[in-house]
Amino acid sequence: MGAVPSVSYSITVRLQVPAGGGMVSHLATVVERAGGLVTALDVTASGHERLQIDVTCAARDTDHAERLAQAMAAVPGVAIGKVSDRTFLMHLGGKIEMNSKHPIRTRDDLSMIYTPGVARVCLAIVKNPEDVRRLTVKRNSIAVITDGSAVLGLGNIGPQAALPVMEGKAALFKRFAGIDAWPLCLDTQDVDEIVAVVKAVAPGFAGINLEDISAPRCFEVERRLRELLDIPVFHDDQHGTAIVVLAALYNALRVVDKDIETVRIVMSGAGAAGTAIIKLLMAAGVQHVVVADIDGVVHRGRDGLTGELAWLAHNTNHPGFTGSLKNAVIGADVFIGVSAPGVLSGDDVAKMADRAIVFALANPEPEVDPAEALEHAEVVATGRSDFPNQINNVLAFPGVFRGLLDAQSAEITSTMLLAAARALASIVTDGELNATYIIPSVFNPDVHQTVATAVRRAAGGPHDRPRLGDDDVSV
Amino acid sequence: MGAVPSVSYSITVRLQVPAGGGMVSHLATVVERAGGLVTALDVTASGHERLQIDVTCAARDTDHAERLAQAMAAVPGVAIGKVSDRTFLMHLGGKIEMNSKHPIRTRDDLSMIYTPGVARVCLAIVKNPEDVRRLTVKRNSIAVITDGSAVLGLGNIGPQAALPVMEGKAALFKRFAGIDAWPLCLDTQDVDEIVAVVKAVAPGFAGINLEDISAPRCFEVERRLRELLDIPVFHDDQHGTAIVVLAALYNALRVVDKDIETVRIVMSGAGAAGTAIIKLLMAAGVQHVVVADIDGVVHRGRDGLTGELAWLAHNTNHPGFTGSLKNAVIGADVFIGVSAPGVLSGDDVAKMADRAIVFALANPEPEVDPAEALEHAEVVATGRSDFPNQINNVLAFPGVFRGLLDAQSAEITSTMLLAAARALASIVTDGELNATYIIPSVFNPDVHQTVATAVRRAAGGPHDRPRLGDDDVSV
Repeated sequence: MGAVPSVSYSITVRLQVPAGGGMVSHLATVVERAGGLVTALDVTASGHERLQIDVTCAARDTDHAERLAQAMAAVPGVAIGKVSDRTFLMHLGGKIEMNSKHPIRTRDDLSMIYTPGVARVCLAIVKNPEDVRRLTVKRNSIAVITDGSAVLGLGNIGPQAALPVMEGKAALFKRFAGIDAWPLCLDTQDVDEIVAVVKAVAPGFAGINLEDISAPRCFEVERRLRELLDIPVFHDDQHGTAIVVLAALYNALRVVDKDIETVRIVMSGAGAAGTAIIKLLMAAGVQHVVVADIDGVVHRGRDGLTGELAWLAHNTNHPGFTGSLKNAVIGADVFIGVSAPGVLSGDDVAKMADRAIVFALANPEPEVDPAEALEHAEVVATGRSDFPNQINNVLAFPGVFRGLLDAQSAEITSTMLLAAARALASIVTDGELNATYIIPSVFNPDVHQTVATAVRRAAGGPHDRPRLGDDDVSV
Repeated sequence: MGAVPSVSYSITVRLQVPAGGGMVSHLATVVERAGGLVTALDVTASGHERLQIDVTCAARDTDHAERLAQAMAAVPGVAIGKVSDRTFLMHLGGKIEMNSKHPIRTRDDLSMIYTPGVARVCLAIVKNPEDVRRLTVKRNSIAVITDGSAVLGLGNIGPQAALPVMEGKAALFKRFAGIDAWPLCLDTQDVDEIVAVVKAVAPGFAGINLEDISAPRCFEVERRLRELLDIPVFHDDQHGTAIVVLAALYNALRVVDKDIETVRIVMSGAGAAGTAIIKLLMAAGVQHVVVADIDGVVHRGRDGLTGELAWLAHNTNHPGFTGSLKNAVIGADVFIGVSAPGVLSGDDVAKMADRAIVFALANPEPEVDPAEALEHAEVVATGRSDFPNQINNVLAFPGVFRGLLDAQSAEITSTMLLAAARALASIVTDGELNATYIIPSVFNPDVHQTVATAVRRAAGGPHDRPRLGDDDVSV
């Protein structure tokens, strides 16, 4: 797949150009000939002889962005000024902030928000500990916690370099679900220490979103925290992905008219996401699934089975199939990849069953070229935003936590995950459903509230979304 | 001191009353006769025969608030509806929130704030770790951390009941210094665990504000964290109080025309605040100081001297004075109390030196009745907002952290604390200074920026406050 210009690599170049006809359109042509995409052209100052123009354009990558700037600078009469990177501009000083909900203008405000008035609120919580969810930010806040060990596809980049991702996540929680999330990037990758730290900070939060923690530590961290805490703990790389994959699978099966209990599924990848997907698929009724990792198909006779891999060996692949991924996909109805680029070719997809479904989710390079896959499979999904059917966790995590918080849930169960997946799938109506639209956009206004409602009800929460009224503060 | 009605105990009472003359003013009279203070009277609905009136009034305490409501309900023709507590109303759902600085409206926004664009920002921090202060919220954020062991005057109420105070603190950090603070209320009171947790969460913050941790654990927690971390650690109960006390003392000495190096100071209280005040006073040049706690004057021959108390015994009270607090204050120039109500009488103050200074900071009941103290001392300050010269930490902590963050300081030193105290004192000009105005209001617009500038310069920060420009993101 050739890379196309992306807004995430866009720059704004300030140019001084001669006044007079044709220069603006000439610059746009220069950028386009160099393979860039002009997204804005603003004349930011004008004189009799010269104009100042800010050209914003999308490039394929950082080198390409530089070449675009050079191409514009090479135009006769043009002088180049500052070149700014739009993505970095948006990150300057951070992407999130903390705000007070009330103005603090007078001594009276101070005496209610802080001392002495606040003491009565503290004592109310001492008297009735559940009031912490009524009278504090705990009602609506979660911690986004990482150890920086498996950040995006970048690997173990540590807690500080992970912070931009966690801030972005917090911003998405607010945007799509109104949740107050704060990032905590931990200076430890020791399981015992992570568990101790998260347990210690838990009193101020109503949920814990674990993020980008590498397998197999992520399994133990989550399991132990779920035992220790009275608030839900959700590792998004596992369960967020699993929910969206299951939702997409539900709808892909509607398209190809096959049944979840009878299809044969082959999965590439036995890490955090792969394991969680398998478990949720089985909870949804999948009977026939085979998993392959870098060492081939996982089966009971394989050496070195520990932890989650042992669980997979004993709970998948009932026929005891051995061999390579490429052999395993022959005749399969569904391929799901959460592994590495190019593990399959178009020819491999051609050997799958009729009306095959291919989810090639490795990012940015999928397990199989989606264009080639589409020649043989009926439904193809990827993790990329420049291809139809993007499997994107943002479809799940905001609504899931909104539902958990509204239910004041102490835990998260596979029943709730299934409810979230079914709700997400249900957004795509029969009239809308087709092979290139099995999953809605994250900007679809129904997505997050529909998921939230399903999770809230599955968690035993109130039928209607709870609201705070001043009846709650009668003396 | 008789309690007076306070806004922090104010209620809003909804009443149905007969339409027609005199009822509104009659209700105000009823409230005032019952000892309350009407602060608002709103007609919220009106008909031919009846009005709906919301009466807001301040009471002395919760019982008094209830009596005020009953007094209004007893007026013939009046029917009482909902009674709401204004302080609790302001706390519903919490006082703080997290917000995204950028709108997220389109896929392009998503691709810059989150994946794939954010990956480049992460990699920039990997390449140049200091960029975390340029490209993330770490630049402007601190953690407000407590273990809930010594909250206000309420004692060991635990982490969840402490949360309203920490939220209030976070709100004040934003209001007065533009800082993004997030509260972390810890589910542990073990020193080793607190140190480990704070160390682990430190990567995402540019400073740590410890709050309401009881002595003597607070000393060890702070000392060990200062050794471990590359960001400043500040226990506000200690140093915030010390800064404001020293600033007030500087100005009180200007009023009585005495010299800080020659005055004799007696302090009541050897806890977190007392110890920090003594150390800062000595750094400021105080030579003659004696400390008393519940067991009398601290001296080298006393039994049971451990930790900070041993330090105090060996570094104060050079004449080796022994005995009671009441004996110690005879002839003293300055009394500073951070201890318990009523440890001194007006007669004790009468035995102090001429032009004595009394800071009676126990809250809500001071060490000596301020009205009685004022009969004999020239300058009296308290921790109360209903008396002149309120010693309030809010005067210090916002500006101190603003200065530390702007200097990107890795530590906080006594030089910076002294600079903060001098800056705070300097706000009160010679023309304004008098015995009832030794310390400015927290709403004085100069306070926080003046303190911040002094701390920033003492920390070796830039002469002018640093600003982020888009020059920082040239490609």
